[in-house]
Amino acid sequence: MPSFTVFKGSKDGVVVKGTTTKPDELTGDHVLIKVTASGVCGTDLHYTGEDMVLGHEGVGVIEKVGPACKTLKVGDRVGWGYQTGSCQHCASCLTGEETFCNGRVLYAYANRDQGSFSYQAVWSESFLHRIPDGLSDEDAAPLQCAGATVYTPLYDVRPNEVVGIMGVGGLGHLAIQFAAKMGCRVVVISGSDSKKEEALRLGAHRFITMKEAEQAAKSADWWPIKRLLVTTSAQPKWDVLLPLLAMRANVYPLSVSAGNFEIPYMPLLAQGLNVVGSLVATRVMHREMLSFAAVHGVKPVIETFPMTEEGVNDAIKKLNDGKVHFRAVLIPPQ
Amino acid sequence: MPSFTVFKGSKDGVVVKGTTTKPDELTGDHVLIKVTASGVCGTDLHYTGEDMVLGHEGVGVIEKVGPACKTLKVGDRVGWGYQTGSCQHCASCLTGEETFCNGRVLYAYANRDQGSFSYQAVWSESFLHRIPDGLSDEDAAPLQCAGATVYTPLYDVRPNEVVGIMGVGGLGHLAIQFAAKMGCRVVVISGSDSKKEEALRLGAHRFITMKEAEQAAKSADWWPIKRLLVTTSAQPKWDVLLPLLAMRANVYPLSVSAGNFEIPYMPLLAQGLNVVGSLVATRVMHREMLSFAAVHGVKPVIETFPMTEEGVNDAIKKLNDGKVHFRAVLIPPQ
Repeated sequence: MPSFTVFKGSKDGVVVKGTTTKPDELTGDHVLIKVTASGVCGTDLHYTGEDMVLGHEGVGVIEKVGPACKTLKVGDRVGWGYQTGSCQHCASCLTGEETFCNGRVLYAYANRDQGSFSYQAVWSESFLHRIPDGLSDEDAAPLQCAGATVYTPLYDVRPNEVVGIMGVGGLGHLAIQFAAKMGCRVVVISGSDSKKEEALRLGAHRFITMKEAEQAAKSADWWPIKRLLVTTSAQPKWDVLLPLLAMRANVYPLSVSAGNFEIPYMPLLAQGLNVVGSLVATRVMHREMLSFAAVHGVKPVIETFPMTEEGVNDAIKKLNDGKVHFRAVLIPPQ
Repeated sequence: MPSFTVFKGSKDGVVVKGTTTKPDELTGDHVLIKVTASGVCGTDLHYTGEDMVLGHEGVGVIEKVGPACKTLKVGDRVGWGYQTGSCQHCASCLTGEETFCNGRVLYAYANRDQGSFSYQAVWSESFLHRIPDGLSDEDAAPLQCAGATVYTPLYDVRPNEVVGIMGVGGLGHLAIQFAAKMGCRVVVISGSDSKKEEALRLGAHRFITMKEAEQAAKSADWWPIKRLLVTTSAQPKWDVLLPLLAMRANVYPLSVSAGNFEIPYMPLLAQGLNVVGSLVATRVMHREMLSFAAVHGVKPVIETFPMTEEGVNDAIKKLNDGKVHFRAVLIPPQ
């Protein structure tokens, strides 16, 4: 029964060091992982006030495998993300859409005794993803949730399709790279000019601010956006955005938000838009994403922090203040 | 230059008889149609206050053809609906998605000198649809818009898929028939029990009221709805409806409405819903719809009114009062 150091939320929103004891032995297909890096995701901010282990962008090395493990072995480098289990029997599971399994194990909803802000972790082999050689541990960590989240809406994109990416942050800066390296035309829409240079460097072909949108949409050589990934946490101003979209555009709201999703009713019909609810990635997509990143050199822009009480709280604060550039990664002491 | 009787909106919302003169001769691929039946659609109600010819569910017989006509001839029975033209050069047109052409000719937006509340009409051959022998003029009329509108979101349905239909009215009563005859499982959701018997007679397999929804969703033998056609004019109560839907359900808001489309944000993502903006039918779908209706006996439930000033205003009033059962059809005097 392995017991190890973890970092949990607490009533007053400060992350505290603790010890977890996974109640089960390494039975079944469970493996024990020594964590080597963990991304910090916007979703973690929602749970700093709760008594649960934080983190769902884990990377590490397998230290021990359960008796039923079939594909992984001690020493393998693996990652895990927002989903760590599914029922494996429902229609969603049986058709390769386990992200929509009714019994899915999702971060913060189940197994709150495990997380990636932790020195070790125990998970089922079936939701661990081998890290390809080309990716370092710290670069692989943010791909486990941010990468998966933006790869999914690009999974069936056509090369040369015009992909709009709203927001240049933890999700957006990865989406730009994936889309550009898939051969898409990448249009970035941002609140201000401040990230223009970096967005273009990451692969964007065009960059406009919301203020420039009206003029841009009227331009004869505008590329109407066929697939829009909304990665900003605030909901977009549709009256400004809709003229930028192609007929039959697909719109993916990707960030977590409360309340209602709202979009003008008649343009939704008249432009034939498709609003697609999308949630992380199936295992097939997740693994393909990692492999794509390794082959094509998709590389998150990260800031590292030590995985200590102080380091975790520093990272959380900086993320809360919107100052992380672009993804925080925690590194446990060696 | 044919001149003929038409029925137009007027400032005080009363429909008045008038005369139209199509400015052009029967040039190009224009044809002159003697109207034999016209459906009355909810969309017509929005324009009774405007100086334009009303009606966009026309059926008639061709009386004369322009010099460039290639597929239709005098005596052919044809229908037309909400769209009567497109540019034929843009990417939407060139890929068979002319409903999303930027230069599309849509009811009330272009060519307001023509309509189906009229004794004759002049339209381009390319947007007229031959009426199959099995369909009467008056049954074919409501199919030109209501039929096309509900057929489109069913165009790629799988037989055996669970189709939810919200609302049993002009659109809903046709959607029930199409879906049932396509081999789908048809679940009707309605505000009250009053239309239950008729919905089941039209082919619905299950019928629930909004009040029964919560209980129904919990039932072990509930059929989770994979494709939901919302045909009611009021926007649905999503907190009641969402538990009835399958993961990855497609939601089609079909009625015309002002303001914003709203749906709870997190369920949209967590259930992986797809909200699809859909607008009438392409010509290929429209013609397939008419043929399907003829082969499988889809038949609108209609009330006929004479196409006179009095008859048109009676039909409009009854529709406005929500008392038409289920579609009003105007018949010009012989």
